[in-house]
Amino acid sequence: MTDLSFHHSPDIKLSDRQVIYFALNGQLPAFSGNYLVTRNIKARYSKLQSFISSILVISILLAASTRIFQSEAWSILWIADNVKFLLIPILFIFILEYLLRLWTAPDSCPDLPENNAEFEQYIRTHHYRLFYGISFLGLIDLLVILSGLFTLISGNSSAWEGYLIVFALLKLSRYIHGIEIIAAVLKKERQILSATFITLAILIVILSTILYLVERNVQPEVFNSIPSALWWGIVTMTTTGYGDIIPMTSIGRVIGGVAMLVGIGTLAIPAGILASGFAYELKHREQLNNWHIISNLELFAGLDANCIKDITHYLKAEVLPAGATVFKKHSAPDAIYFIADGEVEIQIFPKPPTPIRLRSGDVFGEAGLLENRKRNASIKTTQNSRFLVLDLHDFHTLISKHVDLKNKIESINNLRKSSSPDSN
Amino acid sequence: MTDLSFHHSPDIKLSDRQVIYFALNGQLPAFSGNYLVTRNIKARYSKLQSFISSILVISILLAASTRIFQSEAWSILWIADNVKFLLIPILFIFILEYLLRLWTAPDSCPDLPENNAEFEQYIRTHHYRLFYGISFLGLIDLLVILSGLFTLISGNSSAWEGYLIVFALLKLSRYIHGIEIIAAVLKKERQILSATFITLAILIVILSTILYLVERNVQPEVFNSIPSALWWGIVTMTTTGYGDIIPMTSIGRVIGGVAMLVGIGTLAIPAGILASGFAYELKHREQLNNWHIISNLELFAGLDANCIKDITHYLKAEVLPAGATVFKKHSAPDAIYFIADGEVEIQIFPKPPTPIRLRSGDVFGEAGLLENRKRNASIKTTQNSRFLVLDLHDFHTLISKHVDLKNKIESINNLRKSSSPDSN
Amino acid sequence: MTDLSFHHSPDIKLSDRQVIYFALNGQLPAFSGNYLVTRNIKARYSKLQSFISSILVISILLAASTRIFQSEAWSILWIADNVKFLLIPILFIFILEYLLRLWTAPDSCPDLPENNAEFEQYIRTHHYRLFYGISFLGLIDLLVILSGLFTLISGNSSAWEGYLIVFALLKLSRYIHGIEIIAAVLKKERQILSATFITLAILIVILSTILYLVERNVQPEVFNSIPSALWWGIVTMTTTGYGDIIPMTSIGRVIGGVAMLVGIGTLAIPAGILASGFAYELKHREQLNNWHIISNLELFAGLDANCIKDITHYLKAEVLPAGATVFKKHSAPDAIYFIADGEVEIQIFPKPPTPIRLRSGDVFGEAGLLENRKRNASIKTTQNSRFLVLDLHDFHTLISKHVDLKNKIESINNLRKSSSPDSN
Amino acid sequence: MTDLSFHHSPDIKLSDRQVIYFALNGQLPAFSGNYLVTRNIKARYSKLQSFISSILVISILLAASTRIFQSEAWSILWIADNVKFLLIPILFIFILEYLLRLWTAPDSCPDLPENNAEFEQYIRTHHYRLFYGISFLGLIDLLVILSGLFTLISGNSSAWEGYLIVFALLKLSRYIHGIEIIAAVLKKERQILSATFITLAILIVILSTILYLVERNVQPEVFNSIPSALWWGIVTMTTTGYGDIIPMTSIGRVIGGVAMLVGIGTLAIPAGILASGFAYELKHREQLNNWHIISNLELFAGLDANCIKDITHYLKAEVLPAGATVFKKHSAPDAIYFIADGEVEIQIFPKPPTPIRLRSGDVFGEAGLLENRKRNASIKTTQNSRFLVLDLHDFHTLISKHVDLKNKIESINNLRKSSSPDSN
Repeated sequence: MTDLSFHHSPDIKLSDRQVIYFALNGQLPAFSGNYLVTRNIKARYSKLQSFISSILVISILLAASTRIFQSEAWSILWIADNVKFLLIPILFIFILEYLLRLWTAPDSCPDLPENNAEFEQYIRTHHYRLFYGISFLGLIDLLVILSGLFTLISGNSSAWEGYLIVFALLKLSRYIHGIEIIAAVLKKERQILSATFITLAILIVILSTILYLVERNVQPEVFNSIPSALWWGIVTMTTTGYGDIIPMTSIGRVIGGVAMLVGIGTLAIPAGILASGFAYELKHREQLNNWHIISNLELFAGLDANCIKDITHYLKAEVLPAGATVFKKHSAPDAIYFIADGEVEIQIFPKPPTPIRLRSGDVFGEAGLLENRKRNASIKTTQNSRFLVLDLHDFHTLISKHVDLKNKIESINNLRKSSSPDSN
Repeated sequence: MTDLSFHHSPDIKLSDRQVIYFALNGQLPAFSGNYLVTRNIKARYSKLQSFISSILVISILLAASTRIFQSEAWSILWIADNVKFLLIPILFIFILEYLLRLWTAPDSCPDLPENNAEFEQYIRTHHYRLFYGISFLGLIDLLVILSGLFTLISGNSSAWEGYLIVFALLKLSRYIHGIEIIAAVLKKERQILSATFITLAILIVILSTILYLVERNVQPEVFNSIPSALWWGIVTMTTTGYGDIIPMTSIGRVIGGVAMLVGIGTLAIPAGILASGFAYELKHREQLNNWHIISNLELFAGLDANCIKDITHYLKAEVLPAGATVFKKHSAPDAIYFIADGEVEIQIFPKPPTPIRLRSGDVFGEAGLLENRKRNASIKTTQNSRFLVLDLHDFHTLISKHVDLKNKIESINNLRKSSSPDSN
Repeated sequence: MTDLSFHHSPDIKLSDRQVIYFALNGQLPAFSGNYLVTRNIKARYSKLQSFISSILVISILLAASTRIFQSEAWSILWIADNVKFLLIPILFIFILEYLLRLWTAPDSCPDLPENNAEFEQYIRTHHYRLFYGISFLGLIDLLVILSGLFTLISGNSSAWEGYLIVFALLKLSRYIHGIEIIAAVLKKERQILSATFITLAILIVILSTILYLVERNVQPEVFNSIPSALWWGIVTMTTTGYGDIIPMTSIGRVIGGVAMLVGIGTLAIPAGILASGFAYELKHREQLNNWHIISNLELFAGLDANCIKDITHYLKAEVLPAGATVFKKHSAPDAIYFIADGEVEIQIFPKPPTPIRLRSGDVFGEAGLLENRKRNASIKTTQNSRFLVLDLHDFHTLISKHVDLKNKIESINNLRKSSSPDSN
Repeated sequence: MTDLSFHHSPDIKLSDRQVIYFALNGQLPAFSGNYLVTRNIKARYSKLQSFISSILVISILLAASTRIFQSEAWSILWIADNVKFLLIPILFIFILEYLLRLWTAPDSCPDLPENNAEFEQYIRTHHYRLFYGISFLGLIDLLVILSGLFTLISGNSSAWEGYLIVFALLKLSRYIHGIEIIAAVLKKERQILSATFITLAILIVILSTILYLVERNVQPEVFNSIPSALWWGIVTMTTTGYGDIIPMTSIGRVIGGVAMLVGIGTLAIPAGILASGFAYELKHREQLNNWHIISNLELFAGLDANCIKDITHYLKAEVLPAGATVFKKHSAPDAIYFIADGEVEIQIFPKPPTPIRLRSGDVFGEAGLLENRKRNASIKTTQNSRFLVLDLHDFHTLISKHVDLKNKIESINNLRKSSSPDSN
């Protein structure tokens, strides 16, 4: 059943450059009908991509570590003496990576042109290479290489230029899963977030100035200038509280107390904004996820967004606890189930050695509807699960509305009848 | 009415091992139709389970306390001298617990096989015992025993091995209610959470390195290495601010201020993620709770998930404030009410000494619908309450759709008419 | 129009004791049909209640202030010398308050019995007086009086017993608006919140013990016992960071860093829980608010919860920005509007000196529906506003379903036609 | 298509005073049908407004900077010596700004009268000038000017009066985008927020008093009075932790630990409240945004809120991922799409040099419905996008219900047929 749920897509052959681009970035250009193509390609090249990622991540961590644990008191002797022998291969890897990224940059194009002539012209462009070169991560990639080369050439292990290799850690941002969600939320809420931080900055300056005026006569050597008071202000309003500058007078302490409370109050705002931002993002990603589940099933393959949109409107979300029976054997086929989240087990007797389980993205119960016969197995949840359910009645409404869908289903049904007589 | 709302389930006899497993863990294997069976068993053995839990919790707290308050300055003399007399019984309890947990481990199987032959084979397996033995809590259980034995045998009360008995506190996690919700949310959001902490780590390293470069000439003995600067970085970005390492230069203070704000900003992200995660978890648990309420009522007993799913779709959520009249005596029976949250009181005259109140999980108003007669009592809320309401119209739609439900209701109605003529 | 929207309720005369109870607590016992009765009574006695609240709040603040600013270095001389002259009237007020609270305690009964005989018996009971006496605030009330008396009688202004008068501040909790929402959320989420704090406590003990083992040889006088390490643990994991106990070794600093991050991570959970808890509470209070708006309109007065429930189901929420035209003069009457939030202005020409504005809780557009004629004025929003809209079609469905509602509306319509020919 | 989607509004000529008011504040009085008028005016005068804003923001930053970096140790010599030459033009700008704000204050009236006679009378009123003069920002504007004049006249650069010029930073609040959302949420939740801070204040006083009683004998010179203990209390409960006052006794440390946890727990409440407040505000702003999109389209221009309300009820929200095909060329016209968020590209062959893209606020797919012919181009999303979709069926229901809408659409259709035969 699981094999049937995703339909077979055309086999697209990637060029060498595209393979390298994918290995370096884990992303693909958008082919038309891209989801399934991407899925297949990812499956084929994912091992290569993992291997190259691992090498790069290890190189980055080693590059930063050589610097961090360089000083005598800390480092293991072997590393301190042989840091150059470690640095040379790492730099080689980084330079190779940089050159490959420059070469494959045109493949970062989000959308491929449809006809070949344009495609050729596209590939020749240097636009994307320049774009990579001056991008934040492109500049970091270069900086790290230059810093490493400086250390090797000058032999001066304590010059500040050599320490910039620590910035290699920023290259890790390419490999942190989930960071794009954080980035999306931060980008969406950037206006309110920056308003909060600007407001905080203004409050720090004003409260620090007031404290300076209050304390300057009592502690002239500590509060010797407004910038010193500003240092107190930021240390206090972020509730860091080093204790190097402390108000002494009663009024100063009252202002200090106000500063702490105002600081905490202001800094509770970002948490509040991010909470609502993440909730919104989560909801939208769930909707997109449902759309992906539906639009990539064999049953609905080749239908346009209009029809899929209609289908998603008829779907009802259903939550069942672990161990609940979704439907029983021999019951009437009343709905198709899409697993949005969780897992179900098909109850077959005698029990097979490895139980047949369906997971997020799988579909079940469609065979009964297509063949109009009773369920031939019970289905039980093994975890708390969320389903998208399409009712028998809504299914027929859909079929009557979309002729394409009807034809498609009939052909699938005929195909199945001849090939797999015992699927549920 | 409350007695009727949950139907009587078959009386399942637990084996001794199952009883002990339940007493130790408060959980049961999943029988088919498990909710009601579990409910009954829990009611029967809950006292035993509470008793054993109490003994274990007290033992754990004593075991940790002997160590924590051991030192001269703090401890009461009696404990310091007699710690061995306390440790021996505690260790005995822990060893017994460990052996019983090993013995009953197979009962932690989440699902029981349906036929006996498989069941027998199941029980003999050592799979679950090994699984317990190498689980986190299994290892902690063992470690605590070994640490206690070490203290008793060596007689050395200040060796570090003896202090490991403090890890016994981790055994408490079995008894903290609500921790599984926190665990579920943390697990669900682990990707974004770990992305946040990795990002923070990268920022700490980079900002600390920059500060090191800025301050190393001014405070060479304080900022003597990058690891020292890293200590400053984490103390500052978590806004702990011990005050042992403080930037002195103007540029260093600017970097320090940036570090504090970036730290607070980054650490607001987990709060935001958890907020949306808890909201999502709460919503799902509410839906599951509704499902449990419906699926375990006498009225709907024995119906499959399909039918119950249909019922839950027809339900409308209804919120009423404390003191509101849900329906009045002699009004037409227009709906069945399920209490999802809150409490109602049945208004009877003359008032009984203890008022008849229905609570979360109870149902009312079904008798009127079944017998098609006017309400025979008013119902008033005593708290702000949330109901799930099934309308008369939807109820009849349901009956016409599900023959099982219709037959069931007619038989209940007949039964009630003969037995309890005055229920509402 | 506004005068018509809330129907006139019977005039209930409060007994002296009930008046005093209301003046002290701002709450009333639950009469049947309590919302409107409460509204009227609150309007009548609110001035008295404000006056008594003000006296008590001032007394509480004075009582606490005398102690706080007592010490020489701070206090204004006059207060320090004459504190007794201030304490005597304050104590007199507190004692009077305590006696009145004891006397009126039976009125705190949440629900009044319906017949007089029971009512009499009820009033005589001492049950509620005992309940007040042993309640948290009852004990605080008594403690504050005893502490004040101790100071006056002993004349010893520095004994600790005299300082307990500062607990009078807890009496303020009766007058903080919004605190009941916080209390409701904390109560609802208490399980997960306490799970968080227990988890934190366990983590503090374990991390502190590990740090103790690591640091005890390096800083034997600082880390002289586990309790000292526990003090470090809580100061660090709450990110307070006094700086009196700081790890020195590398491993100790790593453990310290872990402690800070774990502490912040754990303490982000309550914020997350409270965020989802407040969102849930807010939603429910909005629903209850809608219910209150509907159930207290003249149009729907006297209908039971069943019918009001039906009405609320037909309502659609509508949000309009400031300055939007809700409907134009001479347009067809297609809906009734209830203002849930915000404000509208009735556009009349020539403009009256004070514009006619309707606010939260008011209704408009019902006259057109009742009399079946075109709108006789335009309505414009003056703020961003939220409406509950009942469509013409749904209104007729409701009338056909509920005969009571139909009769009611016809009689209102007749009444209006004869009395106010020009309402919209 | 984009040019058609917003209908052309009448060209309103602003008076000089209105232009200056707009340039200073970026806001306009509410004309009837204000959205489109405002849009046009904003487009025309936005450059002037940006220019004047920039001058004011720079002046504010310079004014504050002269003071902050005044002290010897920090300032660049040139600034310290020549501060007067900088202060004179800044003060000139501020005085001019103040006079212009006073002059244009009447234009801050939120709503303009409809007839001319009233309008004239309106403009002459000094009501709004007084209102500005005593507003918070009005007073700050004056204070800053006075402080600057004091410095220039007295020549005393270290008197506290001269430092008040730093308050000029508060003038920046007029230019922080997003601050009005924060202000709206804070205002809405002010009751619960202030309840939290009052509760915290009470807890600080009580815990500090207890700690004072516990520690006063051990550290008499540190805990010499309750106010000192209060300073400890606020420094501890906000987790600032300067480390200047630290409990020494065991009981004192326990109270300190409780204070930290209670402080963190209490201060998690504002984050929770703000999170739910922002979520609510976000939802409402989204609804208002949808209303704006719909009410300002050519198709629905001139319809009243009733009809637009009806339209918004028929709209369904639709989320599509980047790269999805919304509809294909030659497919049947089944819906109108409004872009709420995101971007789509019209797929035309041969590809034009700059692709035709539609963004938030644009509409597409209406031509097919109006002319009842197949789609003449495919539409693809270029980002994750959110649409408001109006189905063919609902569109016809709307037309049959609202005659105005029907006439409007027919006239547009006729117009289009004659002018632009190839729009989709």
